Amino acid sequence: MPVYSEKDRGARIEFTYHGSKYSGTVLGKNGDYYNIKMENGYDVFIIPEQVQIVESAKSHAAPKVNKVSIAGEGKEISLITTGGTIVSRIDYTTGAVFPSLDITDITSKFPYIEEKFRIRHVNFLNILSENMEPDNWIGIAETVVKESKRSSGIVITHGTDTMSYTAAALSFMLKELSVPVIMTGSQRSSDRPSSDSFLNMEGAINFAGTEIGEVCIAMHETMSDERIALMRGVRARKMHSTRRDAFKSIGERPIGFFQDGRAEIKESHRKPDQSTEMDGKLERRVGMIYFHPGMEIEDLERYMEKKKGVVIMGTGLGHMGVKFLDTIRNYTGNGGKILMSSQCIMGPVNLDVYATGRELVSAGVTWVENILPEVAMVKMMYVLGNYEDADFERIMRTNMKGEILCREQAGDF
Amino acid sequence: MPVYSEKDRGARIEFTYHGSKYSGTVLGKNGDYYNIKMENGYDVFIIPEQVQIVESAKSHAAPKVNKVSIAGEGKEISLITTGGTIVSRIDYTTGAVFPSLDITDITSKFPYIEEKFRIRHVNFLNILSENMEPDNWIGIAETVVKESKRSSGIVITHGTDTMSYTAAALSFMLKELSVPVIMTGSQRSSDRPSSDSFLNMEGAINFAGTEIGEVCIAMHETMSDERIALMRGVRARKMHSTRRDAFKSIGERPIGFFQDGRAEIKESHRKPDQSTEMDGKLERRVGMIYFHPGMEIEDLERYMEKKKGVVIMGTGLGHMGVKFLDTIRNYTGNGGKILMSSQCIMGPVNLDVYATGRELVSAGVTWVENILPEVAMVKMMYVLGNYEDADFERIMRTNMKGEILCREQAGDF
Repeated sequence: MPVYSEKDRGARIEFTYHGSKYSGTVLGKNGDYYNIKMENGYDVFIIPEQVQIVESAKSHAAPKVNKVSIAGEGKEISLITTGGTIVSRIDYTTGAVFPSLDITDITSKFPYIEEKFRIRHVNFLNILSENMEPDNWIGIAETVVKESKRSSGIVITHGTDTMSYTAAALSFMLKELSVPVIMTGSQRSSDRPSSDSFLNMEGAINFAGTEIGEVCIAMHETMSDERIALMRGVRARKMHSTRRDAFKSIGERPIGFFQDGRAEIKESHRKPDQSTEMDGKLERRVGMIYFHPGMEIEDLERYMEKKKGVVIMGTGLGHMGVKFLDTIRNYTGNGGKILMSSQCIMGPVNLDVYATGRELVSAGVTWVENILPEVAMVKMMYVLGNYEDADFERIMRTNMKGEILCREQAGDF
Repeated sequence: MPVYSEKDRGARIEFTYHGSKYSGTVLGKNGDYYNIKMENGYDVFIIPEQVQIVESAKSHAAPKVNKVSIAGEGKEISLITTGGTIVSRIDYTTGAVFPSLDITDITSKFPYIEEKFRIRHVNFLNILSENMEPDNWIGIAETVVKESKRSSGIVITHGTDTMSYTAAALSFMLKELSVPVIMTGSQRSSDRPSSDSFLNMEGAINFAGTEIGEVCIAMHETMSDERIALMRGVRARKMHSTRRDAFKSIGERPIGFFQDGRAEIKESHRKPDQSTEMDGKLERRVGMIYFHPGMEIEDLERYMEKKKGVVIMGTGLGHMGVKFLDTIRNYTGNGGKILMSSQCIMGPVNLDVYATGRELVSAGVTWVENILPEVAMVKMMYVLGNYEDADFERIMRTNMKGEILCREQAGDF
């Protein structure tokens, strides 16, 4: 019968409860109980008799030493780290997850990668992605420009929370791109046996070795550890808070897949440009507002007052209450920009179908056939930062980087 | 060779273009061209030689005379109309869609329904649902209370744009419910041959004849005209702007299906109560805010200043930048209520996993395992309207009407 000992802190254990088997990690002791961090993120308290230690704490306890770049024979890939769950591990004192791992803990799991590529590690940032700001996007873009001069592909690891915002920002700011820029992350920290980090990283590095000139997100296609989908950065969205297959390519198929050590690009894509160039200006006075029944005219007025442009997440095809029309007309009349998107997430916006839509257009609202709300906001920051106001509508409606779908692909996306 | 004539306005036509056959409705003439409203909502211009008139304009042109209730033999069902696409038709002068049909145009398509049920028509409102306000929710709930005293089931037709908000509001306000309340609508107006109105209505009426005590949404399960899914009102969300299967039951299976004239309830559900009772008070000073990178502290401050409570749509498990912590602490310290939800839409919120989440909790943020953001906002209006402030967190975390999932059902929802 096991008795709790301090050296068990951080050990991986298994236990049986009501006939089902569970696994987790020892956080510590609470009275007579083991305090266990379950795989699903919960803390539970288990009596010692139920616990079976399957892996000692040692491999978790010691902090890793930073490694230098691995020198392989093939293409050079720059691996830019920015923080997030993929470089996080659980703190066995508090039970919280925080960024503290070295990325080489992950890349070194695949010896063949060290033979196939020369990986160059660039530790750029170490933050959780909910703290990512437009200034960070610019810094990452500048790092991509710099790395693109020596490497033939770039992988960026990033927290999953705002990864698609950063992917959109890089897509627009890097107006010419000579190398693939592949973003990846993980839904479970890399110190967990069930982590998705390893396959995501393996896929991302292999995609960085292909010949595309786009910013993409490489993450699990399904809940099992089988295949990595390569999604266009301006069409990917985090659609689930916990699942490995959280990221979905909305309205179009993933442009490629990685499976069994092989990366394949399957859909039409942008070829690499001769060099990588960026437009780094972003208008910061841009925001998003979520329309809902019960929203007050004053809510919209006060919010827009401080903004140069606003993306509204309307309902359905892109609607909001007609009581807001005067406020909208005043705002656009004074030079404010409004783009209507849809809280449905999937499907087009179309302000030509219903009377409400037509009135919104006549009040100065711009709309784009099919662009994701978050991508529209990032694009608005970029367009208002780099173009004349008079060109706003034309550029927003121009498909720059695959962000606008004229027609959704058939299937369940 | 057809020549345009004013009597063709509103006629249904077919034409061939680059070898493919299309159909649409004549909006008018533009120079030498027919101006056609296509099935997909677009306007096109077609030369008369390509046009073949398949149905004259007559059936579209004349406004319908209101019919009185149909007297069948079986259960009495109250059919409450509130407007929306299901009672809309296209205006052949402007091409816009607006609510103007009589609901009996739809119910009368199914003679068997007139035999099976006595349908009682209650024209309550005639608006597009983006204009629906909390006051309207209260009016609809009062109508349900009244109708529940004589009918054994209630169908409410509603615009799809905010149908799930209304379904959530009715779910909470009708704290006891003696009859099924089935909401339905349509994605294409009922005057279009491809309309989903008819099957949705047929399904809704049949579900209203079952023995459940819940507010549900009945809409197409798939893109084809086959099966209607019955979704719990507090778990359904419009996830596509145009498709017939726009509504999805998030994180749980639909509780029933209607196919081939037969409604079946398949999942566990609430049985009808003895009577229908409502709590009609709603706190209006409640809003939602969508967190995004680049959001300013001032945006949150100014927005919350006017609110008693706010639902934040955070990222991932329920995060936002730590720069907002002081603002949040001040707000909750002064009695403001904040509930964290996730812009992922799918999957749980959990503020126990990451450091950011724990800090948000210590700043006074409430979270609930798994509740949809819009439902959380409606519930907050209800809870702040009907309970003491001190009970806020406890009631928000109490599963009142199936709005909280302790565990998502397996499958792709």
